[in-house]
Amino acid sequence: MELNERQEQILEIVKESGPITGEQIAEKLSLTRATLRPDLAILTMSGFLDARPRVGYYYTGKTGGQLFNERMKKLTVKEFQSIPVVVNESASVYDAICTMFLEDVGTLFVVNKQAHLVGILSRKDLLRASMGKQDLESVPISIIMTRMPNVTTCKPSDSMLEVANKLINKQIDGLPVVREVEDNGTVNHEVIGRLTKTNVTKAFVYIANDDIHT
Amino acid sequence: MELNERQEQILEIVKESGPITGEQIAEKLSLTRATLRPDLAILTMSGFLDARPRVGYYYTGKTGGQLFNERMKKLTVKEFQSIPVVVNESASVYDAICTMFLEDVGTLFVVNKQAHLVGILSRKDLLRASMGKQDLESVPISIIMTRMPNVTTCKPSDSMLEVANKLINKQIDGLPVVREVEDNGTVNHEVIGRLTKTNVTKAFVYIANDDIHT
Repeated sequence: MELNERQEQILEIVKESGPITGEQIAEKLSLTRATLRPDLAILTMSGFLDARPRVGYYYTGKTGGQLFNERMKKLTVKEFQSIPVVVNESASVYDAICTMFLEDVGTLFVVNKQAHLVGILSRKDLLRASMGKQDLESVPISIIMTRMPNVTTCKPSDSMLEVANKLINKQIDGLPVVREVEDNGTVNHEVIGRLTKTNVTKAFVYIANDDIHT
Repeated sequence: MELNERQEQILEIVKESGPITGEQIAEKLSLTRATLRPDLAILTMSGFLDARPRVGYYYTGKTGGQLFNERMKKLTVKEFQSIPVVVNESASVYDAICTMFLEDVGTLFVVNKQAHLVGILSRKDLLRASMGKQDLESVPISIIMTRMPNVTTCKPSDSMLEVANKLINKQIDGLPVVREVEDNGTVNHEVIGRLTKTNVTKAFVYIANDDIHT
């Protein structure tokens, strides 16, 4: 997406006369405030303009390179997360492997009866378990999973950059997106999403195809 | 990295007087051509300037946003690829699982005696095999691997964007970086690297931390 002609005009007006209200911009262009709303939203979201209540719009003075970089750093987990797949802590290793195949995921989140996160299982954990000579149906996953509080988690509002760094530094494939829930003074975690290297790869493709230029 | 003062000066000179030779820029700044060489290299590599033999440097007129985007699209496999881990096609599933753990990778490339690529094995393939009731030491990997020509490959000169798209669209974790070798008229593939979602995640972090602005 390139800026359209009207957006370019708005940008010029704000550069010259900012801070300026939406009302005043509309007047200069002989348009209604409502007509301008989508353009102003785009210019603000993409970082060209900033707005302050009771002051109006002003030009951020940021270059295209800076804006692109900022947009990239502002991508958040909630824009890219996937649906989580959970198993109960009482499941067997065999059950977990089946769930992994049925759901076609590389990471399972383990929850207790209260649906709180208690652990995590990767393909690697399950593969290691399957190398032993035990009967996989009789081994509970609670023996082989990585247990809380050793599970790395993230929040929907975290930046993708932050999470990408965690995935690399801790050498993990994915992590649960959680919401903290307080229960009689103890903090528990509810699993509300899944964030993996696949999601980061999608963010990479998304940002490479981002064509807002200035 | 921000542009330094001398680089900004060069940019101004070329904007005004380009196309202009390195010699002429040096003269205007009362510096030697050799002193300017690193600055000119940076300005050219980052896309602000372009150079043509016997013409000189000229300003590309590209905005910071465009340049950032272009730099991102120009990232290549060879800048981010990892060392490949291969197993011989005669290995057993058990051997392959051991190699995967010893080398700590998620994808193994299968080669024949001539060291040519014949197949690929993911953690998922090995996990599926281990669910059966067979003795893993007696099952050869050639039975469970994905076979050439059904293996998606890439070249060192491919762009990371292209490969990221392949990883997502084909739902695979990693692919071999190959070099084609001709042998009596048949084209074979030598494995020279490994490109996974981890490498794309690293590229994402790399580009988010890229601070060349204009």
